[in-house]
Amino acid sequence: MNRIYIGDVKNVKLDSVVELCGWVQYVRDFGKVVFFVIKDRTGIIQCYTSTQSEELLELVKKLSIDDVVRVRGTVKRRPEDQINPNMENGDIEIEVEDFEVLNPCAPLPYDVNGEPSEFTKLKYRYVDIRHGELLANLKTRSVVSSVIRNYLSRKGFWEIETPYLTKYTPGGARNFVVPVRQQPGYFYALAESPQIFKQMLMISGVDRYFQFARCFRDEDLRADRQPEFTQVDIEASFVTEEDIYDLVEGMMQELFREVLGVQVETPFPRMTYDEAMSLYGSDKPDLRFQMTIDDYTNSFSTSKFNAFRNVIERGGVVKGLYWNKPLDRSALKVLDQAASGSGNKFLFVSKSANGLLTNGPKSVLTEETWLEDGTYVFAAGDEWDVLPFLGELRLALGEYLGLLDDNEYKFVWVTSRPMFEIAEDGSLQAAHHPFTMPDVTSIDEIRKDPLKVRARAYDIVLNGVEIGGGSIRIHKADLQRVVFEILGLSSEQIEERFGFFLDALSCGAPPHGGIALGFDRLVMLLCGADSLRQVIAFPKTKSGTCPLTGAPARLFASQRQELLPIFKQVVEEGG
Amino acid sequence: MNRIYIGDVKNVKLDSVVELCGWVQYVRDFGKVVFFVIKDRTGIIQCYTSTQSEELLELVKKLSIDDVVRVRGTVKRRPEDQINPNMENGDIEIEVEDFEVLNPCAPLPYDVNGEPSEFTKLKYRYVDIRHGELLANLKTRSVVSSVIRNYLSRKGFWEIETPYLTKYTPGGARNFVVPVRQQPGYFYALAESPQIFKQMLMISGVDRYFQFARCFRDEDLRADRQPEFTQVDIEASFVTEEDIYDLVEGMMQELFREVLGVQVETPFPRMTYDEAMSLYGSDKPDLRFQMTIDDYTNSFSTSKFNAFRNVIERGGVVKGLYWNKPLDRSALKVLDQAASGSGNKFLFVSKSANGLLTNGPKSVLTEETWLEDGTYVFAAGDEWDVLPFLGELRLALGEYLGLLDDNEYKFVWVTSRPMFEIAEDGSLQAAHHPFTMPDVTSIDEIRKDPLKVRARAYDIVLNGVEIGGGSIRIHKADLQRVVFEILGLSSEQIEERFGFFLDALSCGAPPHGGIALGFDRLVMLLCGADSLRQVIAFPKTKSGTCPLTGAPARLFASQRQELLPIFKQVVEEGG
Repeated sequence: MNRIYIGDVKNVKLDSVVELCGWVQYVRDFGKVVFFVIKDRTGIIQCYTSTQSEELLELVKKLSIDDVVRVRGTVKRRPEDQINPNMENGDIEIEVEDFEVLNPCAPLPYDVNGEPSEFTKLKYRYVDIRHGELLANLKTRSVVSSVIRNYLSRKGFWEIETPYLTKYTPGGARNFVVPVRQQPGYFYALAESPQIFKQMLMISGVDRYFQFARCFRDEDLRADRQPEFTQVDIEASFVTEEDIYDLVEGMMQELFREVLGVQVETPFPRMTYDEAMSLYGSDKPDLRFQMTIDDYTNSFSTSKFNAFRNVIERGGVVKGLYWNKPLDRSALKVLDQAASGSGNKFLFVSKSANGLLTNGPKSVLTEETWLEDGTYVFAAGDEWDVLPFLGELRLALGEYLGLLDDNEYKFVWVTSRPMFEIAEDGSLQAAHHPFTMPDVTSIDEIRKDPLKVRARAYDIVLNGVEIGGGSIRIHKADLQRVVFEILGLSSEQIEERFGFFLDALSCGAPPHGGIALGFDRLVMLLCGADSLRQVIAFPKTKSGTCPLTGAPARLFASQRQELLPIFKQVVEEGG
Repeated sequence: MNRIYIGDVKNVKLDSVVELCGWVQYVRDFGKVVFFVIKDRTGIIQCYTSTQSEELLELVKKLSIDDVVRVRGTVKRRPEDQINPNMENGDIEIEVEDFEVLNPCAPLPYDVNGEPSEFTKLKYRYVDIRHGELLANLKTRSVVSSVIRNYLSRKGFWEIETPYLTKYTPGGARNFVVPVRQQPGYFYALAESPQIFKQMLMISGVDRYFQFARCFRDEDLRADRQPEFTQVDIEASFVTEEDIYDLVEGMMQELFREVLGVQVETPFPRMTYDEAMSLYGSDKPDLRFQMTIDDYTNSFSTSKFNAFRNVIERGGVVKGLYWNKPLDRSALKVLDQAASGSGNKFLFVSKSANGLLTNGPKSVLTEETWLEDGTYVFAAGDEWDVLPFLGELRLALGEYLGLLDDNEYKFVWVTSRPMFEIAEDGSLQAAHHPFTMPDVTSIDEIRKDPLKVRARAYDIVLNGVEIGGGSIRIHKADLQRVVFEILGLSSEQIEERFGFFLDALSCGAPPHGGIALGFDRLVMLLCGADSLRQVIAFPKTKSGTCPLTGAPARLFASQRQELLPIFKQVVEEGG
């Protein structure tokens, strides 16, 4: 085949003959000459035919959008008055010598220049990909995976696949289950992550492993979640946090240089979880702007502003944001919107030579002489309510002030998350996961006051989005057992659920740790897309359906015949 | 961390200090000096400590197999009389300065020098990987995937992931199903292959795509099958068979050069399905030896050997293999074994100056004067029974004669398989799959006599093993519809099952085709392994269980609670 890509025509000598394949974009019929533009994944180009060949001319006149064609013709420079500097290949065109409709296209199912519903676009995904930015995003996704893979290979990591049909790990995300026809009553779980297996690989002596792992989670789907997603799973033996930071920072540097031509500075700043919460009100701080949360508890402790003073007297705090310019009512409106639904209230104070603008008691506030010119946003209450609330307002204000630059990339490591947190039912649960190494020197220390213990875990955050997280893992069976006990498991439960894993830890487990990067999210940021669905070829809707294929579906007759007896038995046995 | 790999010590200057991590292999205690060998994924090295440090000496004496240690020490040349040329790093050793047991190892669950059962090895897979050839195979697997990916990227292919949670495609392999908690009565199917999606990507204008796709098939597991396996899935638009052959031949050339240092000759020979069957009695001929099947029907048509003459008179054939040397009874025994169970019989005739050796009627056969010196293996009967039977005997004979060289790599393309075949129930079924382009010029031709139609399909065979297969696909909706009709689907069934796909074909589908390579099998051949389980990190047994994790398992309480009502509803509704 001598076909070349349209994007390569500009590198061909004028008057050469080329063969192109692609989709007709539009046809302009001037009677004795017909122009038509064709497109492939690399670009578009104008072709024309005239009365020199009546037969061709008639054929071309009948073309319509998305007909698939093969064109053979001569590369010509356009007449000077027809050069279109705003169009790709706008200075050249193809004089058609031969031409074939490979497959005519039926009328498209929706107007590609219109605004079809999300459902329609997913149902006819192939039209959407062909006509939108999805095609470029899929290319970027492929490049990103290639850069990451080559980087990790160069660093000595082996790509190893782990099973997707596996066993349910209690305590993790909710798994999908797969009934096993040949063993009625038994089920595979679809892997929610390769956690256990990657640790097994370290125990196996693999030393450095990675995988682009599909993960399956049967979650109640939120706005931007998918029941299956991809994570770049990385694990290494005999490493510390510093090794993981170095590795990932180098990867990001290479990725942003190769994909966006952007130079990312390393090392990335680091921040403990506590610092991130108190300064930014978030465990994923957006560092593209430096506005931080300050403490104003002292300033208001003797204030005549009762609402705040009362909170303080009850043991609460007053925290606030400050911007060194006065702002007007439109800023207040933006903050009001951001706060709505949270149940929290804020106090807006904009001070200038012209006086105070506030949503609070102006007369009282004028007595707060320590207020400087500029704008304050205060909130009062329990510290762990106030901080995330101000974190939200900070982002709203940042956006309002135009401080969120799409072309700026600010990474930060957030470390030292608490090891345990209190679940809704009052029990302790693992904040990261139960395999995370606690930052303690002895087992006694973790037993004494688990809630005080920090995890040797780290998240990597880019522009306020968590793109990955990991930890140093527990590699000793006795410590792992204690963590399970703290999580409330009995000896029998530990043995039943994790016995095989504790056996493995006892059998030559090296110290190890790793990280998992959210591949879909990373690609989304690199593409500048605003939804995961823009970087996944065939995504599902929020309700988990695929409008293209109609999945999920009812069972087919043959499946019913084989599976109903199994389901029946499961129901009768009570599982 | 300053740790280096053991394999890199030989590149370090003598008397340098290095830090190594690894597993203790064995300890030799000479009282005042103790030697111990440690291992990581790159190699082994001997370390020693002596009475210079009593404390270290005492620690080292307590080491046992697979203790995980960190060693700091000086690289020394061994005394001349202690150099071991048969051991890796046999000329150097490490004088230990500092030493730490990172994790002591419990007694191993089985004797790694013994012969544990397959089940035991799978249960303690991490021990098996660490101590066997699996570690090297996993590395090779990673290298193979990297070479393939880089090759395809260079050729302009984009790596794109397609969904694993999708819709059942009737007529394909049996799918696993996944109940959807949020839509009781509805199920995802686990993708058996990305067939529909890769075609959708072509229709989307992606032009060149590949994927290392996990495929899930709920099959009755045969000796060397896994419920999930990996295929290198490749698809391209505007291509013919020649483009696919070129692409794959170039890939194999690169792969065998990079991984084995073997130069593979291209182009690969090609053979139609009919040729392969008549010459080699197999659709995956092993071309490492050239013995072919010949027709002896004429020779026996007037023979006094009634058994054969009668077959011929009833319309059967006599086919045979020939080897130009006489063979003895041990060859006959090998062939007997290969034939046992097949129900077919063969006639062995070895002729030499010393007379005839045969399992047939010697007196009759001496009258067959056309027999030359050497050995014949004949079989008579219906052509399509005789050919595969002789194909089996050919392989047995080839192995017996030592003609199957493990270091020889003979590729062949087998093309032009029949489009349809007759299923057990008498209906027509697709021999490759229903999306394969038939080799016809008109739709009428395929309707008239479907069984005569050949598919534009091709398999790639290496040393008698099918490592991949593919086809040019149907890209026009009308032809696709006719194929579905020939397969016995009603209009309603076509619409219900494949309506969305026919819509897509009508909407700008380019001509396209591709191939899927069995990645596990390819790696197996490149590793010289004799089982898929030797190249998969965590395989399942023949009954689909994972002895390591205990999958599949019964439902957990929380799962029962959520899933039983769903199963109940499905059972009540009859699916």
